Amino acid sequence: MSESAAKPYSLSFPGTIRDLLRGSGQVMFQQSAWTGLLFLIGIFWGACSAGAPQVGWGALLGLAASTFAGWILGEYIEDGEDGLWGFNGILVGCAFPTFLAPVPLMWVSLVCCAMLTTWMRRGFNNVTAQFKINSLTFPFVFCTWVFLLSARVLTATPLADMDSPALIIHIGGEINWSPGAFIGYWLKGVSQVFLINNSVTGAIFLIGLAICNKWAAIYAAGASALALIVALLFAADPADVTAGLFGFSPVLTGIAIGTVFYQVHWKSALWTAAAVIATVFIQAGMDTLMLPWGIPTLTGPFCIATWLFLLPQYKFNIMPPERKDWKVN
Amino acid sequence: MSESAAKPYSLSFPGTIRDLLRGSGQVMFQQSAWTGLLFLIGIFWGACSAGAPQVGWGALLGLAASTFAGWILGEYIEDGEDGLWGFNGILVGCAFPTFLAPVPLMWVSLVCCAMLTTWMRRGFNNVTAQFKINSLTFPFVFCTWVFLLSARVLTATPLADMDSPALIIHIGGEINWSPGAFIGYWLKGVSQVFLINNSVTGAIFLIGLAICNKWAAIYAAGASALALIVALLFAADPADVTAGLFGFSPVLTGIAIGTVFYQVHWKSALWTAAAVIATVFIQAGMDTLMLPWGIPTLTGPFCIATWLFLLPQYKFNIMPPERKDWKVN
Amino acid sequence: MSESAAKPYSLSFPGTIRDLLRGSGQVMFQQSAWTGLLFLIGIFWGACSAGAPQVGWGALLGLAASTFAGWILGEYIEDGEDGLWGFNGILVGCAFPTFLAPVPLMWVSLVCCAMLTTWMRRGFNNVTAQFKINSLTFPFVFCTWVFLLSARVLTATPLADMDSPALIIHIGGEINWSPGAFIGYWLKGVSQVFLINNSVTGAIFLIGLAICNKWAAIYAAGASALALIVALLFAADPADVTAGLFGFSPVLTGIAIGTVFYQVHWKSALWTAAAVIATVFIQAGMDTLMLPWGIPTLTGPFCIATWLFLLPQYKFNIMPPERKDWKVN
Repeated sequence: MSESAAKPYSLSFPGTIRDLLRGSGQVMFQQSAWTGLLFLIGIFWGACSAGAPQVGWGALLGLAASTFAGWILGEYIEDGEDGLWGFNGILVGCAFPTFLAPVPLMWVSLVCCAMLTTWMRRGFNNVTAQFKINSLTFPFVFCTWVFLLSARVLTATPLADMDSPALIIHIGGEINWSPGAFIGYWLKGVSQVFLINNSVTGAIFLIGLAICNKWAAIYAAGASALALIVALLFAADPADVTAGLFGFSPVLTGIAIGTVFYQVHWKSALWTAAAVIATVFIQAGMDTLMLPWGIPTLTGPFCIATWLFLLPQYKFNIMPPERKDWKVN
Repeated sequence: MSESAAKPYSLSFPGTIRDLLRGSGQVMFQQSAWTGLLFLIGIFWGACSAGAPQVGWGALLGLAASTFAGWILGEYIEDGEDGLWGFNGILVGCAFPTFLAPVPLMWVSLVCCAMLTTWMRRGFNNVTAQFKINSLTFPFVFCTWVFLLSARVLTATPLADMDSPALIIHIGGEINWSPGAFIGYWLKGVSQVFLINNSVTGAIFLIGLAICNKWAAIYAAGASALALIVALLFAADPADVTAGLFGFSPVLTGIAIGTVFYQVHWKSALWTAAAVIATVFIQAGMDTLMLPWGIPTLTGPFCIATWLFLLPQYKFNIMPPERKDWKVN
Repeated sequence: MSESAAKPYSLSFPGTIRDLLRGSGQVMFQQSAWTGLLFLIGIFWGACSAGAPQVGWGALLGLAASTFAGWILGEYIEDGEDGLWGFNGILVGCAFPTFLAPVPLMWVSLVCCAMLTTWMRRGFNNVTAQFKINSLTFPFVFCTWVFLLSARVLTATPLADMDSPALIIHIGGEINWSPGAFIGYWLKGVSQVFLINNSVTGAIFLIGLAICNKWAAIYAAGASALALIVALLFAADPADVTAGLFGFSPVLTGIAIGTVFYQVHWKSALWTAAAVIATVFIQAGMDTLMLPWGIPTLTGPFCIATWLFLLPQYKFNIMPPERKDWKVN
């Protein structure tokens, strides 16, 4: 965990462009620049469809800022080339213009927060490595929570599209039980990984996954479907279900447990299914937990569920994954 | 912490019955099946007296589900034979029918949550072992919190007997200063370990402790009394004091610090008294902390207080306990 | 981390007086008894000016109680001689008479809480040492939170000067843009380290720092100024800004990162500036976080920010600090 022996990262063209795109792909654990490019296209599609192109620009800015932080701090070249500085930053970049008003200082905060995730990721990995787990997207979650909470006190960066603090949850919306609507809910579960509420974006994301790793696409699709079924069975808040908000954390849990930290196998598939179901309950629990502040859970449920299912270190007598295109720091 | 070298647990008769009963006894750190049987009798007595026999059936179901999870996951045979899979599960089984409406899906949730505690216990012990502490009942506390919080969003499993979310605590009830009432408060402090509000159950639990380890019974009785005195001295909410809700976490702290993690000795008795007093303050603090969600602290105060008093690893020049009938994982 | 090999601390005169004063100085990482004496003078000045001399007496009592706990528990002589038992206790002693009504039982609670910080510090350092960080003032923060929260349930120790629990922050007060007022805000940022709202006290604290370590005084002054600028730029709650409440955690972050854990250098100065700015956002975020309970953040933002900037263990190719007058436990 010391940088002394490692070669520092240096900026180059087009190498750094590739590494930035990989940072986008790493949000769903794919090191491929093409996957990352499709993710960015999906983000811009969804952001522009919703009349909020600033979410797309925020994603680019956050990606650049967090990668820049890794470079200037002289972190390991391997991490930079794998895109591991960018995935938290791009999520910060999607979240800030979604939840904060688009004032100039918001962009300053966005850059600060995105850079902060880079060293928090390293620091937090120094902690979690001792328990053989990874910090996942928790640096994004933690830092964004701090800034969203602070926005109620720092009146120069007001909140935009956020729930009011409350003690009682407002259950609203309605489920449309037609197959077409269901496909929409299912795809939005995938698109919400990047805070985008758009079925086309969800489809683009699945294609992006498939061109890098077909199993990642299959597990993402399966996890979104399973989460949707569980959420409906337990009569979760329809407004959230129809917006895909019960899907995005399970999608990440599914990819992580099913294809990254365990090798694809029927035993690990059962374990993944259990983890996906647990993620739905953790999502619902965290929705209640966040009520008094009116801030979103972000991908917190994914982090907690994945840690719960990795910490026991069950081997199930299957080989560990090969991880040719992804590495734990 | 790898299961490779260890022999897996296998189901047998009557061995598994014995191990299930030990799981019940392990809630108060006793490996004895007879103690566990008395605990179950006490639970059923209290549950039926309160017109809620489903709490007793929940206890049995939770115990079975969490033990089943240990078996199917191929965990260490020693843990299974010591009943260490069951103690979190039986507490989940008491909590769910107490706090959630008795709809069919509640029983599904109960089974899922009880099983989850088994691998969370293993995972969390992998973390806490590095600090030479044990996860105690925290897997029960954490998983039950998640499901109770989620019940406000998952409307198919509604809450039953729970406080409304609030910011201001409602101080109510009245202390009856007669000796008979005091004996009741004192015994209920013991019975509430299993979420039972019944003096007879408290007495049965003390007998259950005494037949396995007289010191455990003495420390449990003493801790409940000391906690009662401190709670009255600081004028704690009478409704909680009279229901034994300031007693159950101190009882567990008393047994743990005084008889399990330290050998019985006058020095460790003083340390235990300090820990019991601290538990009362932590209980009161967590009561306030939980207000915005209206969920109970469960045995969280016991876990936090016991960790605070074990982490410094003071030796006090006394021998470590022999732990013939209990082991840290 | 075992006390077996170490010589225990013994009380002496005037040695113990010196060690108590060092405990006061260690709040800002200075081992000097003279610095500690000036800090105590500053506390009494500010407390008496505000008509609350009990805050000064509380500071002395908390300092004595936590140091006494270290002695009676037979902790390392080096820690005792360095004043490392006292710094959490003196802060507890400032906080209790500030936030709780001055009833007799409050003083009992104060002594219990101050003693608790001594072994919580040791226990928590056993955890954090594995990640090469120190518990800082977190034992004070955690234990005081517990007692303040408990005071809403334990009606014999009622709260005095505290905000009501709320979901929406009340933004109030007004900035006075005159230079004289600004010097006041800047000095109060320093005085609030000990919960004192008084510019003269802030000046005394800076002098106290300067006589032990000129860089500590410079970094404290600079951090308070930088935090003030950031808070104003982001239009933080004026009532808090004018009372120095955005300054005290950054002051501690500045001293810790800039002079204690890194050697003074232009590279570490930049890193410190980033940490100070992050502390302002964390302060604002925690102000919102604490709203539902109406309790103060204490020095929590300092602890979190300092951990975030130490955990990555960046070396920046500068020498580690000599730490002649301070040591990590």
